[in-house]
Amino acid sequence: MSEADGASLGSVGEFGLIDRITTDIRAFPAVLLGPGDDTAIVAAPFGSVLVTTDVLVEGHHFRRDWSTAVDIGRKAAAASLADIAAMGGVPTALVVGFGAPSDLPASWAVSCSAGLAQEAASMGAAIVGGDVVAAEQIIVSVTALGDLQGRSAVLRSGARPGDVLALAGRVGWAAAGLAILTAGFRSPKVLVDAHRFPEPPYGAGPIAAVAGASAMIDVSDGLIADARHIAEASGVVLDIQTEFLALPEALRSTASAFGIDPLQWVLTGGEDHPLLATFPPDRSVPADFTVIGAVRDGQGKPGVAVDGESASDPGGFDHFR
Amino acid sequence: MSEADGASLGSVGEFGLIDRITTDIRAFPAVLLGPGDDTAIVAAPFGSVLVTTDVLVEGHHFRRDWSTAVDIGRKAAAASLADIAAMGGVPTALVVGFGAPSDLPASWAVSCSAGLAQEAASMGAAIVGGDVVAAEQIIVSVTALGDLQGRSAVLRSGARPGDVLALAGRVGWAAAGLAILTAGFRSPKVLVDAHRFPEPPYGAGPIAAVAGASAMIDVSDGLIADARHIAEASGVVLDIQTEFLALPEALRSTASAFGIDPLQWVLTGGEDHPLLATFPPDRSVPADFTVIGAVRDGQGKPGVAVDGESASDPGGFDHFR
Repeated sequence: MSEADGASLGSVGEFGLIDRITTDIRAFPAVLLGPGDDTAIVAAPFGSVLVTTDVLVEGHHFRRDWSTAVDIGRKAAAASLADIAAMGGVPTALVVGFGAPSDLPASWAVSCSAGLAQEAASMGAAIVGGDVVAAEQIIVSVTALGDLQGRSAVLRSGARPGDVLALAGRVGWAAAGLAILTAGFRSPKVLVDAHRFPEPPYGAGPIAAVAGASAMIDVSDGLIADARHIAEASGVVLDIQTEFLALPEALRSTASAFGIDPLQWVLTGGEDHPLLATFPPDRSVPADFTVIGAVRDGQGKPGVAVDGESASDPGGFDHFR
Repeated sequence: MSEADGASLGSVGEFGLIDRITTDIRAFPAVLLGPGDDTAIVAAPFGSVLVTTDVLVEGHHFRRDWSTAVDIGRKAAAASLADIAAMGGVPTALVVGFGAPSDLPASWAVSCSAGLAQEAASMGAAIVGGDVVAAEQIIVSVTALGDLQGRSAVLRSGARPGDVLALAGRVGWAAAGLAILTAGFRSPKVLVDAHRFPEPPYGAGPIAAVAGASAMIDVSDGLIADARHIAEASGVVLDIQTEFLALPEALRSTASAFGIDPLQWVLTGGEDHPLLATFPPDRSVPADFTVIGAVRDGQGKPGVAVDGESASDPGGFDHFR
């Protein structure tokens, strides 16, 4: 596990790397069988398991000169862990596919894995298995398993007219950080760090479920784009009131320096992984959430409105366009 | 879903592709919630879930001029499905990460996904989710979930001196097929096809578990290499008797044409995914298995012997060497 050894992945070999990155799973009671056999075995005490997968590719989702290996591991884990939270669940285990050129320093792979394990462990989940393969660019593929703890899942399809629309976690920060790095700058650090590794409000997911949230989604592609997923699944209009969206000083001053409206980052920036949820009018919105709008009757045309005006542009991030 | 449309992945876009490859999950009762939300939900009626992941990379695990997109999808699914079988389980669901250049024809991705779905459906499992990203080369990352149906898992660590060693499924065929393609030939077709898509004896896994197998492994890296995993986990010697290994005519004649011993492919060739299992002497070996040797006391030095002689060379495939 030494960071200092200069060995390449090629000289360490596949099984050498797997030995170095294997998590000690004894602290994770949901792991019935850890790495080292044909599969792992994970507890699913309530008879079902949540499952989601995300792939990060070097040059598309991260750059090694902008982020550390630990940051990239954390970011890769966060994408899947936030999906588990958005169902109202808690993560139990991760499996990781890792592809890299054979001349990659083995220490980089070990640090990336440490970032993955650290982010997962912060939510009580362990890395229980993986596959390590040769590839021309670094790819990190994460699958997360989760548990609903006996609750019903909070789907995208449950929003109803009259519900309130609420957001937990920050949004627009990662997009601002990416703009800063792209322009060749390195500060404000708080925004750059938000691009390097998100800090999703994982715990707010189960809290929203217990509080009776009618719909919920992980905002990974942008607030408008992901609000649209709830709107279309529920057949409603989600009306976002921009006056309720947080515009911290760092975001406003950076947007000013770039000559743009900070709302552009907040409404269309992805990768922060806040949770967007709707709550019936008779339920109280948990403290982790801020009300940012309301759900209206779609009258056959579901969609997203911003300050009452239809937001027809998808505004999200499509990986191939 | 038309194969004929010449649209590129870039013009179809991420969400367009996801729409095209979404499986109809109504035929799969274990799928409690299919694609389209933040996660899928899969039944785990016995309180636990098997999980395993495998990554295939273009140029390392497959070539588009040697294999069709459907073949590559089948092969990607088989690697994970065989791991589930090797625990004695049955697969319930797959999630798939797919990376590709944006100029890849969308029809290729759809066909690859059809291959994945076809292989999974043959064992009763559905594709319940995925992620589609841009990458410079094609990568297919598959995570399979499985169910033990109330049985105990068959681990690598349970082999005991006196057990019989038995194999279900073919071995050496895929390696022969790869040698044929590498040399620029295309026949015997049966061997070339074995490289293009394995035909693992999935059903033999649960059968072995019911029959009381003491240890089992999916042979993905080579017979000696994977036998060594059982030997080391169990602290025993696995003694393979080559006279019991099947050497079909196609394998013998092709090896003869290459001027090599066909046992080289059989003992060290990977990617066929047969199941290697050990059975206590008081149990009958199921008909799907052929006895190929015995388990001996390791006397502190676990390992693999071939015809009584120690096989010290790992003989398997390490992706970085």
